[in-house]
This record gives sequence, structure tokens and C-alpha cells, in this order.
Amino acid sequence: MSATTSAGTDSNAAYGHKAFKRSRSHFADRITADGRDGWPVEAGRYRLVVSRACPWASRALVSRRLLGLESALSLAVADPIQDDRSWRFTLDEGGRDPVLGISYLSEAYNARERDYPGGVSVPAIVDVPSGRLVTNDFQQITLDFATEWTALHRQGAPDLYPEALRDEIDEVMQSIYRDVNNGVYRAGFAAQQSEYEAAYQDVFGRLDLVSERLADRRYLVGESLTEADIRLFTTLVRFDAVYHGHFKCNRSKLAEDRVLWAYARDLYQTPGFGDTVDFHHIKQHYYRVHTGINPTGIVPVGPDLSGWLTPHHREELGGRPFGDGSAPGPVPPGEVVPPSGRP
Amino acid sequence: MSATTSAGTDSNAAYGHKAFKRSRSHFADRITADGRDGWPVEAGRYRLVVSRACPWASRALVSRRLLGLESALSLAVADPIQDDRSWRFTLDEGGRDPVLGISYLSEAYNARERDYPGGVSVPAIVDVPSGRLVTNDFQQITLDFATEWTALHRQGAPDLYPEALRDEIDEVMQSIYRDVNNGVYRAGFAAQQSEYEAAYQDVFGRLDLVSERLADRRYLVGESLTEADIRLFTTLVRFDAVYHGHFKCNRSKLAEDRVLWAYARDLYQTPGFGDTVDFHHIKQHYYRVHTGINPTGIVPVGPDLSGWLTPHHREELGGRPFGDGSAPGPVPPGEVVPPSGRP
Repeated sequence: MSATTSAGTDSNAAYGHKAFKRSRSHFADRITADGRDGWPVEAGRYRLVVSRACPWASRALVSRRLLGLESALSLAVADPIQDDRSWRFTLDEGGRDPVLGISYLSEAYNARERDYPGGVSVPAIVDVPSGRLVTNDFQQITLDFATEWTALHRQGAPDLYPEALRDEIDEVMQSIYRDVNNGVYRAGFAAQQSEYEAAYQDVFGRLDLVSERLADRRYLVGESLTEADIRLFTTLVRFDAVYHGHFKCNRSKLAEDRVLWAYARDLYQTPGFGDTVDFHHIKQHYYRVHTGINPTGIVPVGPDLSGWLTPHHREELGGRPFGDGSAPGPVPPGEVVPPSGRP
Repeated sequence: MSATTSAGTDSNAAYGHKAFKRSRSHFADRITADGRDGWPVEAGRYRLVVSRACPWASRALVSRRLLGLESALSLAVADPIQDDRSWRFTLDEGGRDPVLGISYLSEAYNARERDYPGGVSVPAIVDVPSGRLVTNDFQQITLDFATEWTALHRQGAPDLYPEALRDEIDEVMQSIYRDVNNGVYRAGFAAQQSEYEAAYQDVFGRLDLVSERLADRRYLVGESLTEADIRLFTTLVRFDAVYHGHFKCNRSKLAEDRVLWAYARDLYQTPGFGDTVDFHHIKQHYYRVHTGINPTGIVPVGPDLSGWLTPHHREELGGRPFGDGSAPGPVPPGEVVPPSGRP
């Protein structure tokens, strides 16, 4: 795992003569209601560090918005282009995160473990008083937002991981993770033709099944948005912009699958989803950082993104997006994605 | 111009820190009815050397089929993957072209000009008795097929370059050449972002105009197929398979433009067009030869090609594909594209 990693994914080091393997998260402490790992849920104590380019970090962005955690858990957005010291706060004034006072996310890793030799990944949650990394466990962070941070949820926050549906959600997420979320990376970073082709089959085989599943139901599990939808969304929203060309997942574009394209637009247009997406960050990151597969660093002008805003008609399938809750309010002023990142 | 060139196009050497420039053809002798350059039109005397991967060579393949020149002008098909000595006859038994007896096309170039230092490109026409290259002038070869080789045309051959329409055909072809045929190469081989972006705008700006033009007329000029359609076709048929991803011409796929996609399918399904196309050769060539932009050499599995065979309904626009002539007969047995290259 190299130092230029988004949840272990976006590493050129990962692209070698072995099959692409995602590293386990190194720091798996959990922030919980009871504070059993030493990190109790507390308003204002932690800072979420993301890249808007990264699908794993973007799960946390969506979840935080849907649950209304913005004021309780502040946000640092890293530059989409890492340098050899990895994620950095070059977008901030003076090149420093204004809250943590650091230039590189690695400083929080080192504060946690001196001379930490592993990869620096997002999403990461940092303890503001000590400046120490708490967790970079991308698979657990959003589940804890949904189930441990409940005391700080906004009024009307949806239940994104309802107990009665957890088995089904876990099962759906597991196959989508293996074949789609991570499958596109296995395709893109394959060093051998056979490895790439196996991943390609996984990606489209699973997308076909998911498309069938979503043909007559609005969301993946139950009647409302869940964690499963968040996780599928962060891959789908990147599909045509980067995975189709850059990662050679090119049987067809998302926009060529009537069901999945409508599903993805429905989510994009739902408050809390599309308003977290910065297509500019996404394209800059993938095409400029992965020099092993795009040595020129040239970033495509396409695809035309205007379709994301077109009517999807998925409301005709029924469903209650937020269950017994309601839609989140507007994006906090400092977090609005600039026009350059929007369709 | 390097030794691995398809009409000066597919060279890694061309991909450097200067804007991509297409070389002039080096050998521009013409084979004419009156033989004024020393090369009279004559049945059985010449051999056409192509790669089915190359759009410029593919013009000659289509033209030769439409005009019924197959028995008068024999065909050598090079391996889509060049080595450091360029186009080679590795697909033939013993790695030699059975008629010319050579392993590399460069041998015909050298027979013409000893120690020829320039690029070896297809299409090339070789004089069989002497083994010497006659011409690699990709812009002139098909015009001469249409206008100089008339004595050898089949019965019912169409007039692909009718005198009354030449000005219009030339004008249409010129802008399509600059912005589309060559534009995709300028995009794909750009070394600078600005150079790429200018080419991308040219490609899609022109395609939009061509799409408008073709919305209510079946062919580019007049009522029937002409040289202009052949030249547009050989780029369009490669668009989604290679130019969209590999060359970053990704505003949209051809299949997303209703008019152009129907036009391209109409041509593909017309005898003489689709039956010359080998998608396998096309993809292998671009993705494996251009290591400067695809260093892994991994060849995408997609796109799904089945759409090429779907109804296009363009016949509703009228038009007479072959004018006063008729469709060409079946492909000669030795020249049939294998199933691996077809949708």
C-alpha cells in the first residue's frame, strides 16, 4: 500500500505484476456512542477528511449529509491530486487545513503512529484536540454514522441501516463491493489481460443483475434509501466519467442501461447525493494520478454530463426516499461544490 | 515518421512533445489508365497491402469491394501488431506473403528505394513482378480506383467520384479529414492538454455538423454512395471501439448520436463496407501498439458490438446506394473476416 492511496485504491504501487489487491484498513478504531475504543461520539470533536474524487470517501460525504451530521462533524477536502507525500490540503489557504493546521493528511497518521510506514487513505477521521487519526476504516465509518452517531442526527434523519433489513443490506453490499465497487479497480489496475477480463465480466455480470433487481423497485433494499444505495451510487456516478474509459469497463456506458441510468439520476437528484459530487475532482484525480495507465496525464473533456439532470421518472415506482424521515436541508455554504464540478 | 506507421498515423514516435503531425506520403506515383507515371492499370499486376486495423487502408478495402476490383488487384493483409520493423505478414503461412514472398512490407519499400529511411505505411500498392512499392499515397489511391481503374471495374460498379459532384465531395472530405479522420488522431496523440482539447472540439464540432447534414439525407453528397461516405465510414466504425476511450474522444459515443449511428449502421450493413471490417484487428492494433498511451497493452473487451446489426431505417430517406449500378457480390472466400472480428 503506497502513500498515494484512497482507501487503498488509487495507488500506482498497487498496479504491478500481481493481481490488484485492496489493503485492509490499518486503523480500525471505532467512534461509538459508548466510547468503548476511547473515542466517544461527540459534537465538534472530530474532523472528517475526504477527497471528493474518492468513491470510498464519498460514501461518508453522502451519509453525513443525509443524516445531518455537518455541524457535528466538520469536513476537510483534500486536493484531488496527491503528490509523493499523498493527500494534501493544497486547496486551503496557505496549503493548510484551517482546523487541523496540517499540510498533509499523513501528519495525522504520524501523530497516531510515529513514522507510520503504510498508506495514507481517505476517508479518515481525525481527533481535532490531539490531531491524531482515529480511523480510516472505510467500510465501517458510514455504518457507525448510521448506528452510533444517532444522538447527533438531524431531526428527520433516515434510518440508513435498519435492523430488520441488515442481513439483506449486507448481502447486497457484499456482492456489489466485490464485483462493482472494487471490480472496476481490479479491471483498471489489472496487469494481465486475463485478470482484466475476469474483472470486466464480474463488473457487467453484477451490474446486469442489479439492473434487473432495480427494474421494478426504486431502491436496492426495502422501500427507502439505505447504506446499500449509497455504496452503489458512489461507483455509478463515476462510471461514465472514469471507469468506462480509464478503467476499460466499456461494454456499455451507464447511460446505455435504461434502469441503472434512471436509478443513478434519481439518487443524483436526491438532496445529499449529487450535491456532494465534484466531477472535476473525480476526473482530475483519476487521469492525473494514475500515470501507470495514463502516462500523458491528459484529462478527457467528456463525457457530456448534462444528462444527470434529466427527468428519471423513478418516483413512479413508489418508495419513500427517507422512510419516516425527510430530505436533508441545503448544503452548508462552505461545502458547496463549485460549478466546475457540476453538470 | 517511424517505422510503425499506418499512413503516418499510428506511430509512437509521433507522440512526443510536439503537436501531432501527419507525414506526407513519400511515394506518390499513380497507377493510371494511361500509365503516365510508368504504372499502367493492369489486371493481376499489383498487390494491395493493408492492415484491417488502419482507417486509411480500410478506405481502399471498401473501394476495391464496391468497384469489384478483387480479382484484378490482389490483397495482402498485414498482422495488426507491428514489430520494430513495422507491418509484417505474420498471419500468413511461414510469416511470408504468398505472392510477394516477403516477411515485412518494408522489403517492398527497400526494393523501391534502397535503405529507405522513412516510415512504412499502409495502404501500399506493390508491383508484383518487381516487388517494388508503387504508392503509399492514401489520399490518392481510392480516387484512382474510382477514376483510373474503370476498365477493370465490375459490371454495375457505382461511380464513387462522379465528375458533377467532385467539388462538393472534395469540400466535404476536406473538412471531415481535418476535423474527424485526422482529428481523432490529434486528440489521441496530443502531448499537451490544450492540444488535446482543441482536437476534441474539432472532432465533435464537425460531427455535430455532419449529423445535421445527414439528418434528412441518406448520404453525404448526392443521392448515392461516394468516396466521401467511405472516408467518413472508416473513422465512424472505429469510433466507439477505439477513439472514444483510447483517444479520449469521449463527449459521447457514436451510438449516442441517433443520426450518425443510424448512418454508420446503414453503411456497415451495405455490402462492401461492414464485410471489410475486422474489429478484432482494430482493437488489437490500437491498444497494443500505442504503448505511449496504453502502457499495459491491455485490450478492452468492450464495447458490445451487437448494435451494428440492428435496423437503421435509413432507407426511409430514399437515396440509391449504388446509383445506376448494383451491390457488389459476396466477399471472395479467402478474404472473409473471421467471426472473431465481427459483431
